[in-house]
Amino acid sequence: MSAYAELMAFQRQTEALAQVAGRLGWDQETMMPRGSAEQRAEESGAIQAVLHARRTDPRIGDWLENAEAPNEAGAAQLRHIKRDHERATRVPGDLAEALARLTSRSQGIWAEARAKDDFTSFAPVLDEVLTLKRQEGQALADGGDVYDALLEDYEPETTAAEIAALFDAMRPGLVDLRARCLAHPERPALGGAFGAAEQLKLSRELAEVFGYDLSRGRIDQAVHPFSSGSGDDVRITTRVSEADPFNCLYSTIHEVGHACYEQNIGPQYALTPLGRGVSMGVHESQSRIYENQLGRSRPFCHWLYGRMRDAFGPMNVGEDEFYACVNRLHRGYIRTEADEVQYNLHIMLRFDLERALIAGDVQVSDLEAAWNDRFEADFGYKVDRPSNGVLQDVHWSVGLFGYFPTYALGNVYAGCLHEALQAAVPELEAQLGQGDLREATTWLKASVQQFGGLYAPRDLITQACGKAPGAAPLMGYLDAKFGALYPE
Amino acid sequence: MSAYAELMAFQRQTEALAQVAGRLGWDQETMMPRGSAEQRAEESGAIQAVLHARRTDPRIGDWLENAEAPNEAGAAQLRHIKRDHERATRVPGDLAEALARLTSRSQGIWAEARAKDDFTSFAPVLDEVLTLKRQEGQALADGGDVYDALLEDYEPETTAAEIAALFDAMRPGLVDLRARCLAHPERPALGGAFGAAEQLKLSRELAEVFGYDLSRGRIDQAVHPFSSGSGDDVRITTRVSEADPFNCLYSTIHEVGHACYEQNIGPQYALTPLGRGVSMGVHESQSRIYENQLGRSRPFCHWLYGRMRDAFGPMNVGEDEFYACVNRLHRGYIRTEADEVQYNLHIMLRFDLERALIAGDVQVSDLEAAWNDRFEADFGYKVDRPSNGVLQDVHWSVGLFGYFPTYALGNVYAGCLHEALQAAVPELEAQLGQGDLREATTWLKASVQQFGGLYAPRDLITQACGKAPGAAPLMGYLDAKFGALYPE
Repeated sequence: MSAYAELMAFQRQTEALAQVAGRLGWDQETMMPRGSAEQRAEESGAIQAVLHARRTDPRIGDWLENAEAPNEAGAAQLRHIKRDHERATRVPGDLAEALARLTSRSQGIWAEARAKDDFTSFAPVLDEVLTLKRQEGQALADGGDVYDALLEDYEPETTAAEIAALFDAMRPGLVDLRARCLAHPERPALGGAFGAAEQLKLSRELAEVFGYDLSRGRIDQAVHPFSSGSGDDVRITTRVSEADPFNCLYSTIHEVGHACYEQNIGPQYALTPLGRGVSMGVHESQSRIYENQLGRSRPFCHWLYGRMRDAFGPMNVGEDEFYACVNRLHRGYIRTEADEVQYNLHIMLRFDLERALIAGDVQVSDLEAAWNDRFEADFGYKVDRPSNGVLQDVHWSVGLFGYFPTYALGNVYAGCLHEALQAAVPELEAQLGQGDLREATTWLKASVQQFGGLYAPRDLITQACGKAPGAAPLMGYLDAKFGALYPE
Repeated sequence: MSAYAELMAFQRQTEALAQVAGRLGWDQETMMPRGSAEQRAEESGAIQAVLHARRTDPRIGDWLENAEAPNEAGAAQLRHIKRDHERATRVPGDLAEALARLTSRSQGIWAEARAKDDFTSFAPVLDEVLTLKRQEGQALADGGDVYDALLEDYEPETTAAEIAALFDAMRPGLVDLRARCLAHPERPALGGAFGAAEQLKLSRELAEVFGYDLSRGRIDQAVHPFSSGSGDDVRITTRVSEADPFNCLYSTIHEVGHACYEQNIGPQYALTPLGRGVSMGVHESQSRIYENQLGRSRPFCHWLYGRMRDAFGPMNVGEDEFYACVNRLHRGYIRTEADEVQYNLHIMLRFDLERALIAGDVQVSDLEAAWNDRFEADFGYKVDRPSNGVLQDVHWSVGLFGYFPTYALGNVYAGCLHEALQAAVPELEAQLGQGDLREATTWLKASVQQFGGLYAPRDLITQACGKAPGAAPLMGYLDAKFGALYPE
């Protein structure tokens, strides 16, 4: 066997084990009995230790030295393996295992703290997480920027400085647009109660309309909606609020965007480094364009309005009001419930705070106050309780520092892709009005999803759109859409 | 770190990975999307390869040479590790791989043959399985008895000769008891239809009544009921037939017996070789005593009758008839549907045939005839078709030679434990009549379950009962119970 073939056979087993580890994470959020958390922490630690040992296996270095890529895809495989191997060898094994154990434990503590609305019961373990993540970042950075080193896990070949520049350029426009919209009296949310069973049934239909292959996936309920797995086993979760059906329905469409990306990667890349979405930013571009540019569009809302009447009986709003409800700006607190305009401001808050936490410029003991101050500055009113503020997101509890900015980067990429999609599919509006997503999702599969990790994120978006990504398409789209919804 | 501590730390991680592999198996039977089977095969293969590499790791030999056990439990840990390591290293890697490949293929061929009722289409691959299992047994036996070497996987420190002596002594009495019962007109099964949701609700209540800790477990549906996992994450499955509620209810009680054994092992043994049930026979003794001696007893049926009336409305039988239904003998063919009397005859048939197959005294080409002759001799009527005879069980198709006798050994052990339990808990009958299993299950936990793998199976039962195990208690119990149900 050639060095390349040996390396790829070894890597294939590693990828299969990574899928097993991912399935264990899915189980923890959906199926695991509540009394199993401590044992699960050891199980997760053990499989992560196995993965770490494989990723740092010295044979990888030897194989890489002698491997000859058979083609362009092979060269991309080697690039991924080399980067992952270098990063893995930089993190000491005991640190990796300690992080896996700690974050499995700390997530439970976060959930309890959130339920009790008590940040102080979460702060000590967050401090431990932060300490270990800083150590990990320092090991990865090898003298470079610690936050950038963590960011690389989620958005390769992108720096915090680039993101900060992008965000800083967008922020005045967003603040202005938000202010213009919220100068209007706040619109009421959709009234009424919506049965959980009917919501789940409709969300399943939406998942299929957007192309999710349920023979290679499944939908369960969890506290925090997510997508998990690659290839032929990609699962999503959703959640149900009887008062707010859009929570369930749009969470589902969002996660379906992620899941379709994983399901639609070329099968020749299955269980290889190219067989996963290339970055969180590109991943988020798929979930966002499914959810927002397509799912929250005027024509799709026409179709959805009809389906909701079928599912829940007569609505107490007309179709235009319904569309306005789907896209209403609300003086809320929760990132995952935010509209397309304010969402990005939520991200910018987290991005700045987590950079400061990693840099040591903000201490955990001051985090709640820092969050509350920044929130009031950006949103104009005070956080009323920790579960509406600093405790609302799972990310930091599981050590996901560097993850948040990819959400807004995904919005930017989604804006670019939407512009290109509109040019490529002239009948898009009419199709959306009939709940027909086939041409749109086929274009996204052909332009983005099928390639998996073959191209670097920016190159992929550039190739799909015919030009380099920037904030202009997203900002133009938001101005037009929300300017019309909230006319001056 | 001492050699003992290093070995135990290594082993702990192996045990945690074995739990992960077990959870993956659970997922496959309960949650996995139908289109994920091929990918799952690679995932399972990858984690099994990791486990095999760890079990044959040469460092284990070095550690064992230098390890000093700190106490009795430590000595037992070392015995287990030594035995598992020796067994794992004796089987050549290519044989293990060939067996895994073959049995994965042969299971499908068996399923098709069963569906077609055609033994001849299964015979060739069964012959291949036998050839490889014989090779495996020879490698494991190291000059000793081949069947005993295979049996050791399921019932350590027990020989086929011992089991044969036990079974041969029981068989005439069972054949006679069976004939006496079936001299009566056959009783009808319970009539009516029983809602699936109500069955599942009642089975959940039964699980809790029998002491299953649902905060460290869960109940799902699967084609075949099973129990999976150890320590703080022990899950069971059940199945529902609307025509036959006893299928669901007694499957649940049976699996709860297995699950409680795993849940009740001393937490100091968690994720060590002592943290699992010590043998299949002892495991089955727990599931059987829960299901049969306790669950199918006259007083418990009084309580269950009331609960079923609460759940399903008025019954079309009185309480005595209900008890007789729960314990009816039926002229059937299928092991898994058999009553307490005939079940053991099913096992003895399989045990004798599989020993003869391994020894080469019966050829696969003669197996169907041998099965049918023996069945007619013990049951008094002919097998009507292979799916009701030699093709009914999956075990041989996946190479589980040596597994069958542990089912009847479990019945024998359950008989011994039941006798000791009655002596230890004088109020047992009255408690069962109130659906109160607390004292009974506490005694089983204290006498058997808590010890995990600390004592050898026979020693454990001897200690719990105050005398060596034998068939007399089971035979006496069956004679008394079924003699009263089918009076001469």
